[in-house]
Amino acid sequence: MPSRYVIGLDMGGTNIRCAAVSTAGEVMLLRRAPSRAGASAPEVAANIAAQIRALEDTAHGRGLGAPRAIGVAVPGPLDVLRGVVMAAPHVKAWRGFPLRARLEAHLGRAVVVENDATAWALGEFWRGAAQGHRDVVLLTLGTGVGGGLIVGGRIVHGRSGMAAELGHITVEPDGMPCDCGSRGCVEAYASSSGMRALLVRRLGAQRRIPAAYLDAEGNFSVRAMTRQARAHDRLALETFATAGRYLGIAIASLLNVFNPELVVIGGGVAGALPYMRAAMNAEVRARAFVAIARQARIVRAALGPIGGVVGAAFAATHPPRSQRGRQV
Amino acid sequence: MPSRYVIGLDMGGTNIRCAAVSTAGEVMLLRRAPSRAGASAPEVAANIAAQIRALEDTAHGRGLGAPRAIGVAVPGPLDVLRGVVMAAPHVKAWRGFPLRARLEAHLGRAVVVENDATAWALGEFWRGAAQGHRDVVLLTLGTGVGGGLIVGGRIVHGRSGMAAELGHITVEPDGMPCDCGSRGCVEAYASSSGMRALLVRRLGAQRRIPAAYLDAEGNFSVRAMTRQARAHDRLALETFATAGRYLGIAIASLLNVFNPELVVIGGGVAGALPYMRAAMNAEVRARAFVAIARQARIVRAALGPIGGVVGAAFAATHPPRSQRGRQV
Repeated sequence: MPSRYVIGLDMGGTNIRCAAVSTAGEVMLLRRAPSRAGASAPEVAANIAAQIRALEDTAHGRGLGAPRAIGVAVPGPLDVLRGVVMAAPHVKAWRGFPLRARLEAHLGRAVVVENDATAWALGEFWRGAAQGHRDVVLLTLGTGVGGGLIVGGRIVHGRSGMAAELGHITVEPDGMPCDCGSRGCVEAYASSSGMRALLVRRLGAQRRIPAAYLDAEGNFSVRAMTRQARAHDRLALETFATAGRYLGIAIASLLNVFNPELVVIGGGVAGALPYMRAAMNAEVRARAFVAIARQARIVRAALGPIGGVVGAAFAATHPPRSQRGRQV
Repeated sequence: MPSRYVIGLDMGGTNIRCAAVSTAGEVMLLRRAPSRAGASAPEVAANIAAQIRALEDTAHGRGLGAPRAIGVAVPGPLDVLRGVVMAAPHVKAWRGFPLRARLEAHLGRAVVVENDATAWALGEFWRGAAQGHRDVVLLTLGTGVGGGLIVGGRIVHGRSGMAAELGHITVEPDGMPCDCGSRGCVEAYASSSGMRALLVRRLGAQRRIPAAYLDAEGNFSVRAMTRQARAHDRLALETFATAGRYLGIAIASLLNVFNPELVVIGGGVAGALPYMRAAMNAEVRARAFVAIARQARIVRAALGPIGGVVGAAFAATHPPRSQRGRQV
């Protein structure tokens, strides 16, 4: 019997999501486990392999047989030619780590690795907001800002799979410091870490972040700040307006570069878009060619947190040129 | 006898270049004529048609027969789906002008129209510096800044052919005003009009541009300013450094977005690159991912001023999807 499913795994800073995805893109089984991103590089890889094996066991128990292919989405610039993670912001130990080779050694079969933002974009392209479109810019706003690009109906990988680092478009040359080492990247404004830094700068070194902006564990939370914005809190509204302004500057540049049909915005921070939209739209109107802006809709992502596993599964069966037909 | 040549025409702000280009990309005949960009929209179109007919006559006289196809490159955002020029900066009368239909009425046969920067990029891709590469960012620095994008071996058109307006990436949100109506576009710094504006701002309203920066007609000339830079003129060196800084910021963003093999820089202002390169490289180093920057060479264009006609000829025989197989 031919296999009816593909495994898609999405490695986040906190959780791993691992799913059995049907060949039509439906999630049949979903596991969640801690990603243990602070462990050593080989331990993190071993944990990923263990999650995949556990899912395979469950699938086997349900009579689904073996997976047709395995796709793994990981954060950070990734050399897809070699399956090497160059620098993962949330898995510090993965600098130049040959993740694909390590996973294939654990599992004894071919694995396709893909950048997590690219995988998310592929998910939205396969089954979400970008379905059926040929020219799409996708932005995911979370701890950082990631992206994916569909040009002429195909995902853009660039020379070695590191393309679409859309969070690292400069929007303010002497602006806020960015985790990447540069300054004034759009990620330094329109991500949760960027918004936190904006807030800290606004409050000054003396004052702590107000409790109303923190989650139950005492960490800064965009969701909590969104609740404050809903209650007309001035500081929250101004922070979202600044984030929206710089997001709009980046989107205007991307419109002029790609002349897309669609801009899709997703990620955990996208829930704050209603409070960013006015400032964002003002920059798009001021900076993008009218004829280009008129042709592009800016919409929310459709799949939510399962976008990554769906896209990782898609990547597994539609691997980048360099990973096609590999045997282990 | 099958036709051995294609006509490529490049409409500039001052001159029209019109060439018979062999199917291998060699220029067999080349005509140059004033573009009369200040005339009415129909007159400018009639002039283009007249140049094409004059070249056809010459080619006929040389026993070359009729052209296989005709490609026309024009400035400004262009809707290639409809063959309509949206807004040409140097042909003010062409706002929403149905150029393709007008040329086809004059000539009685199909014409492919293409953005001039895209055509130039196609020329460099076919016969110039980008030949044989799959992922290339091309920037042309002239009166304005234009661009072209090769992704996975194919030119990027976007939804309707207006993609690759690389001159209109924002590099300084509250920066110099740009001809497009926005502020702080890279064109407002790294083009000849941008450098002129930088110089005027630096000198203040009182002082006129020094004669050493002017050409024989008394107009600001990047070539003249380059001669001054060669003689260690501080104002010239600083202006080129500012232009180089912002060009570098745009290139760093483009590297992070495209992960290209190659960045090709051409156009009339590219002769000043030696005086822009240090500031440009400093921004690329500071802002692009190291792994991405290491894979990309930044090189000069190879074809010079004939890039546009060669690329227009290429566009004529490899038309955008929307113009393929059209009959008139």
